Amino acid sequence: MRAVVPFDARTPNQRLSTVLDAPERRAFAMAMLQDVLAALEPTRFEPHVITTAPLPESPGVPVTIDERPLDAVVTTEIERQVPLAVIMADLPLLTPDSLNRLAHTAGDVVLAPGRGGGTNAMLVRDAGFETDYHGASIRDHRAIARAKGLSVGELDAFSVATDVDEPEDLLAVLLHSDGRSADWLTGAGFRVETSTGRPTVTRTVDSD
Amino acid sequence: MRAVVPFDARTPNQRLSTVLDAPERRAFAMAMLQDVLAALEPTRFEPHVITTAPLPESPGVPVTIDERPLDAVVTTEIERQVPLAVIMADLPLLTPDSLNRLAHTAGDVVLAPGRGGGTNAMLVRDAGFETDYHGASIRDHRAIARAKGLSVGELDAFSVATDVDEPEDLLAVLLHSDGRSADWLTGAGFRVETSTGRPTVTRTVDSD
Repeated sequence: MRAVVPFDARTPNQRLSTVLDAPERRAFAMAMLQDVLAALEPTRFEPHVITTAPLPESPGVPVTIDERPLDAVVTTEIERQVPLAVIMADLPLLTPDSLNRLAHTAGDVVLAPGRGGGTNAMLVRDAGFETDYHGASIRDHRAIARAKGLSVGELDAFSVATDVDEPEDLLAVLLHSDGRSADWLTGAGFRVETSTGRPTVTRTVDSD
Repeated sequence: MRAVVPFDARTPNQRLSTVLDAPERRAFAMAMLQDVLAALEPTRFEPHVITTAPLPESPGVPVTIDERPLDAVVTTEIERQVPLAVIMADLPLLTPDSLNRLAHTAGDVVLAPGRGGGTNAMLVRDAGFETDYHGASIRDHRAIARAKGLSVGELDAFSVATDVDEPEDLLAVLLHSDGRSADWLTGAGFRVETSTGRPTVTRTVDSD
């Protein structure tokens, strides 16, 4: 089954600009993409990266460059063939198990909510579905399916709900992953700090 | 199977003090407890609330008052009988489905991580396990199980990982729940604001 992974190669993770500069944000975004592709690899999904600009390195799967907005890209893909999965690229905790659960959840459309109200993964089995990724998209996607008479399944997975958007989200990567994204953060000096009781993230940058 | 739900009836949710006063925090904590008990109700778990002080209203399940620290309370319960589930009281998105998955996950100990590094639910099948709920407890609990030669299962559930600790966590309740906690927040004037693109929470308090 096809799985489209949309990727912003130009200005990814702009909300991390208080803790990472632009080259760091691009490198970290690539690490997260690689974690997502590594989770997809042992599953039945066949990943295809659709990126806004050429990638700095080959991810080892087919890549298409398409500068259009996300909804236009996904609409084209749905018209081409269903079932289609759409998996966000900023899910460093993603696991093969949660992807297999996505594949086995019933529904004309299966939605996996993101913590902040986004739709972090979806599986579209009916070509009548349309996406609207702006704002609190999980609610809009439920409403669109309802309006079109399509059944909706939902995937309850922390590993899918955890997208990386704000600096505070880095804590979850360090706490719950041992993938490339976590390695990249550790290499960049990020650490979990637990001395005050509640875990937080700190960064130590070498001065030499 | 017994399910202990520890509850702080005295000073719950102190990190919400910037958005809720003390009586509001106690009322909201009771709403979250009721959501947790409502999720447990149709499952095989038999809930038992262990509270630091008398509750303002009966939750409809057995209640024990015990002022000791959480680890001491849970140790006593594990010594009494296993299997034992320990479910945190601040999980307003909790569902019967995720609890059934907890019950069916293999392992001498099954751990459900919280977003911030806590252990939001656990199922202890081997009385040799010990808890340590301070700091990033999910990592400590994995290490304790390993040190004792116990197998660990993990539950990947957004509905269990979402605890309410900081004001920003209220967004997830409003976005993803229609339970008592969400009703309470709505009644107190909290709303999801999506006009800026990324959803946030705002509060409107009636002036009359």
